[in-house]
Amino acid sequence: MDYINKMSKMFDNTLIERLFKREKRAVSRCISIVETGNSNSINLLREIYPRAGNSYRIGITGPPGAGKSTLTNQLTKYFRKQGKTVAIIAIDPTSPFTGGALLGDRVRMSEIGTDEGVFIRSMATRGSLGGLSRKTIDAADVLAAAGYDYVLMETVGVGQSELDIARAADTTMVVLVPESGDSIQAMKAGLMEIADFYVLNKSDRPGAESAITALKTILMMKDHTATDWLPSIIKSIASESIGVNEIAEEIEKHRNYLNEDDRLRLKREKNVKLRIEEIIKNFLADDVWNHYRVEHLNESLEKVVEGIISPYHLADEIIKNYKNESVQ
Amino acid sequence: MDYINKMSKMFDNTLIERLFKREKRAVSRCISIVETGNSNSINLLREIYPRAGNSYRIGITGPPGAGKSTLTNQLTKYFRKQGKTVAIIAIDPTSPFTGGALLGDRVRMSEIGTDEGVFIRSMATRGSLGGLSRKTIDAADVLAAAGYDYVLMETVGVGQSELDIARAADTTMVVLVPESGDSIQAMKAGLMEIADFYVLNKSDRPGAESAITALKTILMMKDHTATDWLPSIIKSIASESIGVNEIAEEIEKHRNYLNEDDRLRLKREKNVKLRIEEIIKNFLADDVWNHYRVEHLNESLEKVVEGIISPYHLADEIIKNYKNESVQ
Repeated sequence: MDYINKMSKMFDNTLIERLFKREKRAVSRCISIVETGNSNSINLLREIYPRAGNSYRIGITGPPGAGKSTLTNQLTKYFRKQGKTVAIIAIDPTSPFTGGALLGDRVRMSEIGTDEGVFIRSMATRGSLGGLSRKTIDAADVLAAAGYDYVLMETVGVGQSELDIARAADTTMVVLVPESGDSIQAMKAGLMEIADFYVLNKSDRPGAESAITALKTILMMKDHTATDWLPSIIKSIASESIGVNEIAEEIEKHRNYLNEDDRLRLKREKNVKLRIEEIIKNFLADDVWNHYRVEHLNESLEKVVEGIISPYHLADEIIKNYKNESVQ
Repeated sequence: MDYINKMSKMFDNTLIERLFKREKRAVSRCISIVETGNSNSINLLREIYPRAGNSYRIGITGPPGAGKSTLTNQLTKYFRKQGKTVAIIAIDPTSPFTGGALLGDRVRMSEIGTDEGVFIRSMATRGSLGGLSRKTIDAADVLAAAGYDYVLMETVGVGQSELDIARAADTTMVVLVPESGDSIQAMKAGLMEIADFYVLNKSDRPGAESAITALKTILMMKDHTATDWLPSIIKSIASESIGVNEIAEEIEKHRNYLNEDDRLRLKREKNVKLRIEEIIKNFLADDVWNHYRVEHLNESLEKVVEGIISPYHLADEIIKNYKNESVQ
């Protein structure tokens, strides 16, 4: 096992130099390398990693149809007016079937994408839920190394992979709409874990006040003794740019909060810890399956289904075999 | 490392005998043991596993508010009229904060729970998304070993843990409502992977027809050359018991389909394979973190956040250390 060193380098150093100059084609190429997830990708990440801490990372999540893309675009325009550069990673779970990511890209491109100071990349699940959060976080490292002032990570929902991505953000906002009442109930645990603040978008629609009440109830249940940051709820109508300034100010406020008392470094340490645990988990989950053990599993499945051996018994056999031959 | 054998048995054999007789208190106790997830749980599962293949397992999933609980109750009544016994595992992600699971239980209990032939158990996420799918699948084994004819597993949404649970079912139905249009778009990939058929509940509401059109579009995109089972869409109004017979008939139809050409055994083999991979993944993810490596991680986090070493580099160090000391 040599996870890093045995790799051959499939890119030249001029690519990384061009990345550091924020050349869009080089940025794009580096993200494509990272998307492969192979050893080449790890090598690239190692080289760019010393510069990956400079950007401020913002997570934007919430149920489908809440207006996350519109808000992301509006926020981007706001940051651009302040002279800041912005990179957007949009996770699009619909694209494997409809090409939604590409369509979304085109709409965005016409609005903000032609701006030299804005980089947009959609990443699709391609029908699988696994691996995407790791690639997204790796891509955020690339964009940070490229020197964008803000990296916005836009994801749908609060499943495990969205939690992972939120954990890679410095500030996470959860976007809801008045119709999200049911979702709010269902997502309680996840929402509370990740939201630094909430945005109630389309807040001119019926049900806005009761959605806010539902959110406040959740916020009250949270144990606030552990922290002195109280997540607020901001109303917006993204399609009319209402509330965008307030959102940007809340991000700034949270950023200032993190900059006090070493909180940003501590938060990033906590996040990077979860990230490393995830990398190790996925590596081992893959590493265990050599030819012999795959065969052993496949040949034993019938016995498990017939109840002759239990799944835990077979798992134990495979784990033992893996651990006994690990030393190289 | 000895995953199974070193365990002391913390339950006596009369408990298992009483489980096999379907005594409710013994069933309850066995599920509580399984919920601990410790070695005792694995020992219990090994003893009951030879009988775990007899029940027919039905997965019921969909967005919050779609009416899954009502449908589950109606289906239970239908099966009871046929003289069949039914066990229900309801996954309730809201309960850590509101006691929702307990409330839900009480409503159910008054309706069907006093019936000797029905067993109901809610399992809550307790604020964490991990581990629940494993415990749910283990609990289904217990209920199957107890001899219930049907085990219904009711879950919310189509996140990774719901996919895992659906993979433990013989037949999975996805319940939607006309308002689920956005969710349908967002969940496409997940829905297609798990649904043996769809139920459009509350189908008297506006938007029912366009929701059906959206679903049909998704179904058309699926590659049906690999299978001759075409998922159908059944309309229901659960609160008025409309569509319940059709749902039960569709389950029976799918069951008959699986009983042909050895399909049920092949499906269960595929499911059990994923389950074992998951058990191994989680075991290794836990096993790697001994005292030394936890310390090494914690002491190195600062260097990672400062960009001195990359997350992959640190992960590699820890993996190497784990693999080099595995032989015992």
